[in-house]
Amino acid sequence: MSTAPTHDIGFARLDLDRLRRTGDPEVILASHKTPGQTVESLRALSAAHPDRAILATRCDELTRGACQREFPAAQIDDAGRTVVLGPLPEPRGSVVVVTAGTSDLPVAREAMVTAAVFGTTGTLIPDVGVAGLHRLLAVAEALAAADAIVAIAGTDGALPGVIAGLVGTPVIAVPTSVGYGTALGGIAPLLTMLNACAPGLTVVNIDNGFSAAVAAARIARRVGTRR
Amino acid sequence: MSTAPTHDIGFARLDLDRLRRTGDPEVILASHKTPGQTVESLRALSAAHPDRAILATRCDELTRGACQREFPAAQIDDAGRTVVLGPLPEPRGSVVVVTAGTSDLPVAREAMVTAAVFGTTGTLIPDVGVAGLHRLLAVAEALAAADAIVAIAGTDGALPGVIAGLVGTPVIAVPTSVGYGTALGGIAPLLTMLNACAPGLTVVNIDNGFSAAVAAARIARRVGTRR
Amino acid sequence: MSTAPTHDIGFARLDLDRLRRTGDPEVILASHKTPGQTVESLRALSAAHPDRAILATRCDELTRGACQREFPAAQIDDAGRTVVLGPLPEPRGSVVVVTAGTSDLPVAREAMVTAAVFGTTGTLIPDVGVAGLHRLLAVAEALAAADAIVAIAGTDGALPGVIAGLVGTPVIAVPTSVGYGTALGGIAPLLTMLNACAPGLTVVNIDNGFSAAVAAARIARRVGTRR
Amino acid sequence: MSTAPTHDIGFARLDLDRLRRTGDPEVILASHKTPGQTVESLRALSAAHPDRAILATRCDELTRGACQREFPAAQIDDAGRTVVLGPLPEPRGSVVVVTAGTSDLPVAREAMVTAAVFGTTGTLIPDVGVAGLHRLLAVAEALAAADAIVAIAGTDGALPGVIAGLVGTPVIAVPTSVGYGTALGGIAPLLTMLNACAPGLTVVNIDNGFSAAVAAARIARRVGTRR
Amino acid sequence: MSTAPTHDIGFARLDLDRLRRTGDPEVILASHKTPGQTVESLRALSAAHPDRAILATRCDELTRGACQREFPAAQIDDAGRTVVLGPLPEPRGSVVVVTAGTSDLPVAREAMVTAAVFGTTGTLIPDVGVAGLHRLLAVAEALAAADAIVAIAGTDGALPGVIAGLVGTPVIAVPTSVGYGTALGGIAPLLTMLNACAPGLTVVNIDNGFSAAVAAARIARRVGTRR
Amino acid sequence: MSTAPTHDIGFARLDLDRLRRTGDPEVILASHKTPGQTVESLRALSAAHPDRAILATRCDELTRGACQREFPAAQIDDAGRTVVLGPLPEPRGSVVVVTAGTSDLPVAREAMVTAAVFGTTGTLIPDVGVAGLHRLLAVAEALAAADAIVAIAGTDGALPGVIAGLVGTPVIAVPTSVGYGTALGGIAPLLTMLNACAPGLTVVNIDNGFSAAVAAARIARRVGTRR
Amino acid sequence: MSTAPTHDIGFARLDLDRLRRTGDPEVILASHKTPGQTVESLRALSAAHPDRAILATRCDELTRGACQREFPAAQIDDAGRTVVLGPLPEPRGSVVVVTAGTSDLPVAREAMVTAAVFGTTGTLIPDVGVAGLHRLLAVAEALAAADAIVAIAGTDGALPGVIAGLVGTPVIAVPTSVGYGTALGGIAPLLTMLNACAPGLTVVNIDNGFSAAVAAARIARRVGTRR
Amino acid sequence: MSTAPTHDIGFARLDLDRLRRTGDPEVILASHKTPGQTVESLRALSAAHPDRAILATRCDELTRGACQREFPAAQIDDAGRTVVLGPLPEPRGSVVVVTAGTSDLPVAREAMVTAAVFGTTGTLIPDVGVAGLHRLLAVAEALAAADAIVAIAGTDGALPGVIAGLVGTPVIAVPTSVGYGTALGGIAPLLTMLNACAPGLTVVNIDNGFSAAVAAARIARRVGTRR
Repeated sequence: MSTAPTHDIGFARLDLDRLRRTGDPEVILASHKTPGQTVESLRALSAAHPDRAILATRCDELTRGACQREFPAAQIDDAGRTVVLGPLPEPRGSVVVVTAGTSDLPVAREAMVTAAVFGTTGTLIPDVGVAGLHRLLAVAEALAAADAIVAIAGTDGALPGVIAGLVGTPVIAVPTSVGYGTALGGIAPLLTMLNACAPGLTVVNIDNGFSAAVAAARIARRVGTRR
Repeated sequence: MSTAPTHDIGFARLDLDRLRRTGDPEVILASHKTPGQTVESLRALSAAHPDRAILATRCDELTRGACQREFPAAQIDDAGRTVVLGPLPEPRGSVVVVTAGTSDLPVAREAMVTAAVFGTTGTLIPDVGVAGLHRLLAVAEALAAADAIVAIAGTDGALPGVIAGLVGTPVIAVPTSVGYGTALGGIAPLLTMLNACAPGLTVVNIDNGFSAAVAAARIARRVGTRR
Repeated sequence: MSTAPTHDIGFARLDLDRLRRTGDPEVILASHKTPGQTVESLRALSAAHPDRAILATRCDELTRGACQREFPAAQIDDAGRTVVLGPLPEPRGSVVVVTAGTSDLPVAREAMVTAAVFGTTGTLIPDVGVAGLHRLLAVAEALAAADAIVAIAGTDGALPGVIAGLVGTPVIAVPTSVGYGTALGGIAPLLTMLNACAPGLTVVNIDNGFSAAVAAARIARRVGTRR
Repeated sequence: MSTAPTHDIGFARLDLDRLRRTGDPEVILASHKTPGQTVESLRALSAAHPDRAILATRCDELTRGACQREFPAAQIDDAGRTVVLGPLPEPRGSVVVVTAGTSDLPVAREAMVTAAVFGTTGTLIPDVGVAGLHRLLAVAEALAAADAIVAIAGTDGALPGVIAGLVGTPVIAVPTSVGYGTALGGIAPLLTMLNACAPGLTVVNIDNGFSAAVAAARIARRVGTRR
Repeated sequence: MSTAPTHDIGFARLDLDRLRRTGDPEVILASHKTPGQTVESLRALSAAHPDRAILATRCDELTRGACQREFPAAQIDDAGRTVVLGPLPEPRGSVVVVTAGTSDLPVAREAMVTAAVFGTTGTLIPDVGVAGLHRLLAVAEALAAADAIVAIAGTDGALPGVIAGLVGTPVIAVPTSVGYGTALGGIAPLLTMLNACAPGLTVVNIDNGFSAAVAAARIARRVGTRR
Repeated sequence: MSTAPTHDIGFARLDLDRLRRTGDPEVILASHKTPGQTVESLRALSAAHPDRAILATRCDELTRGACQREFPAAQIDDAGRTVVLGPLPEPRGSVVVVTAGTSDLPVAREAMVTAAVFGTTGTLIPDVGVAGLHRLLAVAEALAAADAIVAIAGTDGALPGVIAGLVGTPVIAVPTSVGYGTALGGIAPLLTMLNACAPGLTVVNIDNGFSAAVAAARIARRVGTRR
Repeated sequence: MSTAPTHDIGFARLDLDRLRRTGDPEVILASHKTPGQTVESLRALSAAHPDRAILATRCDELTRGACQREFPAAQIDDAGRTVVLGPLPEPRGSVVVVTAGTSDLPVAREAMVTAAVFGTTGTLIPDVGVAGLHRLLAVAEALAAADAIVAIAGTDGALPGVIAGLVGTPVIAVPTSVGYGTALGGIAPLLTMLNACAPGLTVVNIDNGFSAAVAAARIARRVGTRR
Repeated sequence: MSTAPTHDIGFARLDLDRLRRTGDPEVILASHKTPGQTVESLRALSAAHPDRAILATRCDELTRGACQREFPAAQIDDAGRTVVLGPLPEPRGSVVVVTAGTSDLPVAREAMVTAAVFGTTGTLIPDVGVAGLHRLLAVAEALAAADAIVAIAGTDGALPGVIAGLVGTPVIAVPTSVGYGTALGGIAPLLTMLNACAPGLTVVNIDNGFSAAVAAARIARRVGTRR
């Protein structure tokens, strides 16, 4: 196993074996890298696999600017802070990304872009939090029809649990750092989701729209094959 | 002010001035007292005010047994762990006590008894948690008709916030220690309630059905006067 | 229920049914929105209900500036960070807003404005913390006369509990993030309030003058009807 | 929606509509119930749906004994603390349940039983923690072949993240309360899992083998239909 | 310095130099020792200094029984869980030990015994918590007259801060583990005390009546010399 | 008691009775006030008591500048962030302020200024942390000779406990926010101090050199009278 | 690598490759196993390697009894809760195990036994905590002469950091759960050790005398070879 | 002992005895010092021991600039934020510094410089995190050959434990603050490391590459002597 391909670019050892092992594309987490490191990593991965989409997440304004200049063909999402290089894969299955409030939109955008890069179709349904239940009940059918749901909420984090009680679709919950005081930077909604009364809810790290979408895509790709 | 009446019984200084200041009856928190201390406190308060109801909360089995023997006329609630001595006041207004699950019933019983001792009428609606929303929607009218609501929930603690979005009645939320792991002994539902998206929700300590009912009774007594 | 009115403005699904369900006006939490999103939300809600007051809270300087330009008739409170559009409702009942220190004033201002928008009369009593008890004892009668009290304190958070032992008025406690070190951004006074020895105290999120005032207004509106 | 069927048995309001909404069977969480309440809930659900499997989880010794006496045909798992009544559904798809150590077996047993009741086939692979990597590498193919993986680990909680880097199968991680000191009753492995470097890992509450298996079964049932 | 006297009894190295360095007597913390280890430590210290009082704290029932048998002349306090051997020193200065509630009495008893062993006079004033302020105001003069105050409170922990605002006497606050839920085993009153608005309050570990009394005695001995 | 003097300046209710009750001067905590509010408070207190020193703590650069302009005679300490107006009282007794490291100096400066304003003499001994014990042992006599010690330390916070084992002088420990990572902003040294093996150590809030010095001065003033 | 030897005994997959990879013997953590599982694991490992010592840690009384019966030749340490089977290896190098107090002895015993099984010589120095520094200074030479030090302390956890400032020997610190209240079950001394001012201190889990001794033995074996 | 040499430079008491006691060079932690204080400390230590290397860590940009100007011969590492003055010692033994990701490089650089100043040879192996195990397995031999390993990881912190299971070399783990949300600023990887299943792992403070390298150097210097 220690002979699987990597690519050493000095400060990083790129994993060129990921697609074979997991079916997933390569990804760069830009948040603790310099713009130059992110650009160089994108370039190396793109050179190794020019026929695949490469995703960089958590790109701040400087990094997005550097990518824009270096890769004019890159698809850049400012709200979601993502950069995508190369052709998207053919989508299989479908994922619904739903948010409790308007403030959760950046996380939702990251999830939407990730879903596309990881090979599935995403649909966004924003602002259906439980303080006005009729908004949620109005979209119950769309939720039931998806192969997987990414449910995003901050503050009380109650939305994903209510959804998991309404439909049998796999639901992946994303707590967000929206809120203040006892929201504890997203710990409060995280705990709510981990303690959801409705069974079958699974949870990812705070603000981690990326990982939630990867999980959803892994499900949707499998389910979608059937159709 | 330092001349207001107290009654010194050695280990305690009973506050005989409470009714005048706040309109509330005397109460004994038995949880850190010996059975003998609770019995003696009840006896002293009852002697001072034989015409009023005296409440002891958090009475364990030994204490309830001692009270049974010493005060055969006492009203004892095993589930709610309460002992009441003396005549209940004339009730004013109405309070609904609602729970998310069956496991929240001991806290609900404590709240029901407290509501009666503090001068209002309580109605219990158990097991309407948000994992099956139709159970809650079926009782929405009863909730809207109350003068105040005590909403009790453990684990995800989502119920009170959903109620506060459904009706305009004052809602007092009680987190319970029901749950395990990340429920953190009730911290998780407490945080959910403090971060409720619906405004106007107020919260008390974990498992504190007593204090929630006091708050609800203070509201209901004022509102109920009108009727 | 899923047919109750909402208004979809792309990034938000406005809840136009709230007044019917709860008696409360519409509110926008601006803290995680762009100035443009807040302005657009205010405009949409105001267009739907031009005869009602609309409240935006947590408006930073940029947002307040944008609102000033777009809605010259708006009432803007810089200390409380609020923007109000449209005519205030006829007030019913009365609420006292009391603070432990000068530093709690921004939260108190948010509470005062919210009380007015939610249909009750607010009176402000600042700086009566327990380090100088005589300041508090001097206002005890005003506290007893209110329909509900919003008691605001940071650091040790002791004030609301002392008030709840002095008078029988419903008291809603607001911990503030004033303090440093072990104040833990407001967690310390929050815990103090949740553990108050005096019963009947209820608590809201740190710095949440808005929600405390909503709870107080819901009480005062009901009690005040009687008069 | 408020007219969906429930069954009121005094202390509980059973949700008879769950299968229609979610495809999931009825379940009773026995941990905060008396043995009598669990027996009575099982009887009521079984009477409503004699053709379906009913699951009770977290049954202590007393409760399992009471079920044994009342329902001689019940399938009881002492290690997993489960009681199952009625015929299991036809399984679709397959789930692998993998543990880091021997001490995680009770949680794994709960997951295995739940998988069967929720309509999928479970396979158990115990004791392949990362302190001896060769044990894990030896089962990599079995992990890759599953429709979903439930990965259970206490103490450092590193196993699920390593699996999610090895295969593309959806992985649901369960932290356990195994460990001492800084394991913090399962908080440490929970954090490890939420922060896994490998993307796509999703997490449930500490020791919650039940909910992880529900999530896995929801995935496997969808994927498995195809076969 | 490394030649100062110690006494090696195998499992412990007794510090025979303490009185010379600090003026304090020898003390044994029995809580993590076997009854035999505590008895043996007491015997060794008593043999080294038969003319001084030796104190053992946190003695459980078994340990107190063993001490009773071995040292018939020992003074044993069951509530405070202390054992004292040898003659008490001549007291200098005076300390007041004040509690918020009846449940704080065990900690107060430990403080009272410690004060005597550490060479000062203690006076106990129980049950003057802030929920009934008149009880506290009635004893303000006694508080002002002491050389140092040990103020003990659980739950909200508000009492010591109110005292420090009333009088200029040095006040040492002891949080207790009395309370439940968000009292967090004494963390809540500890935080209250550390954040007291009144300056000059100092704090010790939860339930540590011993250390508070040592601090108070060190002050009272110095002040009392003057008289 | 409610008739004791206060001075209402709109945003604050100044406590003019403090000296009579506690012997302490008036103080303003500037950290959550505007420069204008601090200046106005200083002016009002100074006008009421021109013969006494008035202290403002936690004055940021803007506030210190405003004070400099308004009160040219003010004594301003930039490191300690203090402003003093009016004549210092005649000192009684002596306090030693000792720090573990150079980084603790700002807290030490605040303590030194406070000691002078509260009527005692302060001596500063910096940088004697336990990583080089000989530095501490070299000053042991100076520590033993003081009436009270303020011991300041961040990171491991071990210094004050070692001092309390060396000398019998009352020691007040101040944890500082110096450190990173697991220092948790001062929580780590706070816990160390609260758990000190040496008895008699008392503790104040993180970085609270002010309150520690007030406590020390209250002790030193009483002890010092004798001389 | 996936072909390295393991031994499958149903509930466990024993790692028979450890000695080759790491030089360490096999170990069984008994704390979450039944006595039968521990006995069976010991038997299997002993059968595979009859010439090596096998260690079981955290054996409760029942498990130690079962081992005594099954393996009459086993060396059992009741205080340290260990069981050793088979011949000890030839020791290389030397380790000193030092404790702050008598209460830390069980952890020290676990470390002493582990050191022997892992191939080095252990020497125990108990009860030299920093509250009486002369006790520690008296053993400084023994500390300097060791190849590695295991320093064990609860409550304030200050001892290991002071040692690391005194000598250049590698020091491994073990926080213990000795203490109460803010000791937080060992979190307080853990934080003290992680924040030690003296550099080069490394830390293990609370009460983990085993892992500390493994680390110390790995060092001592390497250093000791030289002699 | 209290006569060992120190150098008093007003704000600091430099420990000139360290090399004699511990074999370690002098070090300055610049993070809470002004640039001028760091420069002055470097100058004083360098004057006392011109023949030894002096290390300053945590030097921000301003401090590094000041050092550059004052000491043109200084070796400055911008990524590692270190300044070194004077000749490096002859290295003994070897240390491998390994990181899980690119983002851990600043901590690794601090460790590399420290290793050199503390007298050993460092080798850097970056970016071999467990999400792609083959990258780690490819360097296993280099890890086994070192005298000590410093293993650095953020987010899930799983790498050091996997290494400690692969090789018998002493491993010192450094958690980093890389990550977001539930990484809790490095608390999550710290807990993972403290709970590592593989025995013998020891841990230092978050981001503390310095102390880890000191510990590794102390080991390597002893082992390396032999060669």
